[in-house]
Amino acid sequence: MCQPEGVGDTPVCVLGLGLIGGSVLRAAVAAGRPAFGYNRSIRGVAEARADGFDADTELPAVLTRAAETDALIVLAVPVPALPGMLDHIARYAPGCALTDVTSVKREVLDMVSAAGLRARFVGGHPMAGTAHSGWSAGDARLFRGAPWVISVDDDVDEQVWMRVLTLALGCGAVVVPARSDEHDAAAAAISHLPHLLAEALAVTAADVPLAFALAAGSFRDGTRVAGTAPDLVRAMCEANAGQLLPALDELQQRLTAARNTLAHHGSVADLVEEGHAARTRYDSFPRHEIVTIVVGEEDWRDELAAAGRAGGVIRSVLPVRGR
Amino acid sequence: MCQPEGVGDTPVCVLGLGLIGGSVLRAAVAAGRPAFGYNRSIRGVAEARADGFDADTELPAVLTRAAETDALIVLAVPVPALPGMLDHIARYAPGCALTDVTSVKREVLDMVSAAGLRARFVGGHPMAGTAHSGWSAGDARLFRGAPWVISVDDDVDEQVWMRVLTLALGCGAVVVPARSDEHDAAAAAISHLPHLLAEALAVTAADVPLAFALAAGSFRDGTRVAGTAPDLVRAMCEANAGQLLPALDELQQRLTAARNTLAHHGSVADLVEEGHAARTRYDSFPRHEIVTIVVGEEDWRDELAAAGRAGGVIRSVLPVRGR
Repeated sequence: MCQPEGVGDTPVCVLGLGLIGGSVLRAAVAAGRPAFGYNRSIRGVAEARADGFDADTELPAVLTRAAETDALIVLAVPVPALPGMLDHIARYAPGCALTDVTSVKREVLDMVSAAGLRARFVGGHPMAGTAHSGWSAGDARLFRGAPWVISVDDDVDEQVWMRVLTLALGCGAVVVPARSDEHDAAAAAISHLPHLLAEALAVTAADVPLAFALAAGSFRDGTRVAGTAPDLVRAMCEANAGQLLPALDELQQRLTAARNTLAHHGSVADLVEEGHAARTRYDSFPRHEIVTIVVGEEDWRDELAAAGRAGGVIRSVLPVRGR
Repeated sequence: MCQPEGVGDTPVCVLGLGLIGGSVLRAAVAAGRPAFGYNRSIRGVAEARADGFDADTELPAVLTRAAETDALIVLAVPVPALPGMLDHIARYAPGCALTDVTSVKREVLDMVSAAGLRARFVGGHPMAGTAHSGWSAGDARLFRGAPWVISVDDDVDEQVWMRVLTLALGCGAVVVPARSDEHDAAAAAISHLPHLLAEALAVTAADVPLAFALAAGSFRDGTRVAGTAPDLVRAMCEANAGQLLPALDELQQRLTAARNTLAHHGSVADLVEEGHAARTRYDSFPRHEIVTIVVGEEDWRDELAAAGRAGGVIRSVLPVRGR
């Protein structure tokens, strides 16, 4: 029951109404989309309903409704809950277009494949969040201007891809097309590693008398994400161990080299100068808008992956082959 | 030429008009204090004068004026420039009350002692800054609400101490009394270590394709201070190697332990849970105002050091013995 035209009007079904899922539901409604959601806990559903949203704790009913309305299903439950969720989808809504908003793409892709749902799946990851969690922490504007990765692995379906793109753009995000494995390596370096560093810094400082009494900007910034709920940090780091471990090893090697030059030569010049140069490159990282790639044409997935790697983002719906 | 009364009206002489010194000069003037400054570069002096401030490139003249007006001299030059500066002070203004606003207290204390100026010196460190530098980056409000450490080492003079306290409070800071060595250990944990982590994180991520394209909140926060001028980062880290090395070793041991549990057991639970608990303790670190300690009474320095360690801050001028 695909709808090559008007995909922006098809319903969105959000499974899991925590910070991210709850924000997707709000943003979809704010964008004028019909949208409804499922949450395991009665409390989350009650809060969502109290705020005027269409939410339910009955998973089979929600999924049946998704199948009947050809909804785009958005997986927004914690990774450990995904396999059970996917089993239900395979049973009640196997034909629905499917995406996710969790942080590690390889693991989700494997779970989706195991559930036999890969043909209709296009992974996603909005790179937004706060240190808070739960329905009440959500915000329809959470994704405005934030990068939202949409997978362009070899086998993604172009029609599902366009539906996920339309959702992300409707939420105000800028879309970065990326292969799942490349996404995961980048996420390790720019999200999971910073989380571990923040935790280690907080623990180390906690042992020093006077440290908390004096802590200001650099400590507050450097430990902010240590305020994230431990379960969420564990889930994303542990699910991405394959990419996180080499990134951590590389970082430790750099710290050890700096430690040794400081101990033996009184200098941290190499690390500090390279770090400053890298941060400066980040500040001036060139962004450009992807506008000419036609979804569905030959090599469209490879072209999108290359463009994303080079700093390309999608800000409005791309042309589609044959339309 | 001490002035036990009305110390708030004595002039302030700021040596070095970069981000911190330039902000002290502005804040002192904004607080109604007579204040003048020295800067080595003609450019900094020209900019300060263009903004209406009293500044000069002639060090002997500035110091002679400080001596004649019994000014409180504020050392705000980079640490490598301190020994030369102290030699000039010893020659032209040896009787002036003296403080500093640099980040490592032990090294400065040793330099001041070597110049024979320790009797009139009370070290200080305003814990404020930005990623920018130079006169133009300064701001009279930079210190508002920021912790400003004032040393309470065994031999500090109570009258000089009160003059430094009055300056810091006049700049809008909250004063934390601390021993120099305890300050340096805390600064290593909450400032110098976060700087090295930010540099290492920026360098590590720079090597990963797609990383800068996706970088968002946790990377931006975690690398913000890598934007600080490399010379400043090197100066503070290298001057505090004695405290920074053990803090870095402890942090790396924690990262290595987490690495091993992740590699062998798929878990980062210990680090993440301890880190979250430490950050939560920081967020609720109890602050109280120090009001009852009388400067100059027996053990006043020890009492202030203990109060600072326990989260005490000074928000208004303390009582002084015999007044």
